[in-house]
Amino acid sequence: MSPAATTQKEHWRIGELAARAGVSVATIKYYIREGLLPPPPVKTGRTMGYYDQAYLERLTLIRRLRDEHFLPLRAIRALLAERDQQPLGAEEAELLARIAPRVVRKLAGAERGLPRDEVMARFRLRADELELLEQMGLCGATDGQYDASDVELLEVLARAEAGGLTRERFPVEGLAHYVELLGELARREVRLFTHRAAATVPSAELDRLAERATELSEPVVTLIRRKLILRALRAQLEERTP
Amino acid sequence: MSPAATTQKEHWRIGELAARAGVSVATIKYYIREGLLPPPPVKTGRTMGYYDQAYLERLTLIRRLRDEHFLPLRAIRALLAERDQQPLGAEEAELLARIAPRVVRKLAGAERGLPRDEVMARFRLRADELELLEQMGLCGATDGQYDASDVELLEVLARAEAGGLTRERFPVEGLAHYVELLGELARREVRLFTHRAAATVPSAELDRLAERATELSEPVVTLIRRKLILRALRAQLEERTP
Repeated sequence: MSPAATTQKEHWRIGELAARAGVSVATIKYYIREGLLPPPPVKTGRTMGYYDQAYLERLTLIRRLRDEHFLPLRAIRALLAERDQQPLGAEEAELLARIAPRVVRKLAGAERGLPRDEVMARFRLRADELELLEQMGLCGATDGQYDASDVELLEVLARAEAGGLTRERFPVEGLAHYVELLGELARREVRLFTHRAAATVPSAELDRLAERATELSEPVVTLIRRKLILRALRAQLEERTP
Repeated sequence: MSPAATTQKEHWRIGELAARAGVSVATIKYYIREGLLPPPPVKTGRTMGYYDQAYLERLTLIRRLRDEHFLPLRAIRALLAERDQQPLGAEEAELLARIAPRVVRKLAGAERGLPRDEVMARFRLRADELELLEQMGLCGATDGQYDASDVELLEVLARAEAGGLTRERFPVEGLAHYVELLGELARREVRLFTHRAAATVPSAELDRLAERATELSEPVVTLIRRKLILRALRAQLEERTP
């Protein structure tokens, strides 16, 4: 949210912050002691402080990670630490500029692709569906050609369709959920990899690791997703049985 | 956020809402016309209304989906529609109760697993690492045994480690990002599948489709993630080159 000229910044005492977040004052103090929350941003004395909207949002996020995602404090701390990272520094940016082209080459595939009319015919896509996939960034004809990775994605979508996940039942726009959440995950993964690699991976090893990181992590993503689908199934069932 | 007794519910005119969200009044009116936003929750006349915090949050979400995830309105509409769904109705809950056990059986694997000490030795896990994986819901010894799906996940983690994504560089708590975002995805997928299946899939076909839906969608998730990693890489590079 951008700062708005017409609104004054609000500040609350710890009791009001607790009420707004639906937690106890003791919980807030515990999170501060554990380093999950910083001390009050505005200090008015040795023991008294005022808390703002950003602070409330961080507190709400911690509670959501705990109550909805069942994450323990140690994992929440790691999540928040990554979120607190500044944009890439000069050294990290240089590193990223060096490894990114290798990853792009590896993931995008070098083979030539198919022209638009052939793609539409082969995958029986309506023009509006293909356009939507393009707008969502899931395939793209920069030079009127769809590249190998576009064709590969369209193929697995066609296979899912043949298996019963038809477009009538599950329209293309439903992929927006994947774009939102896997997009956020991808951003964090790129940042995290770059931060950690810059700090810990010997330069000679780095190019190869960057090239392989995506495929090494793919089965991890697949199996974690299965675990979480099981959890979501069980949670939905429990919600319905009082 | 839970309602707090000490805070009064705030309401804003459209101009102040726009300022708070950092958009123009025309944009808000456009979203209302397009059905992305409802009319003002508190109407005070034919043309005047007041907007609340929940409304601001929905508006902020739309802008985030547009600006950060590059989603077109049609996809945003689909996302919001799913989010607006009520908890499962009686018919859907019944359907879920029928299909869930088959999916659980399919995903969890029936083979017997390994006892704790064997797991720790085989995967060279420290006690605190295994405990963290358990707390995050990524494996779990209900009867002192880790089941086949636990062992499979530990195996792909070990393979990632052998490939260079070591636990020193990428500690176990970093998996919290996957738990948060794939967990949210899994919840939406279960809800979406149940809603859509209840509405459109013939009963005779449903059991088989539910069993296969996860594996049919796995390559879709993998390839969409690759696309989005490419996009994140390019975005990070552009951010650094003025």
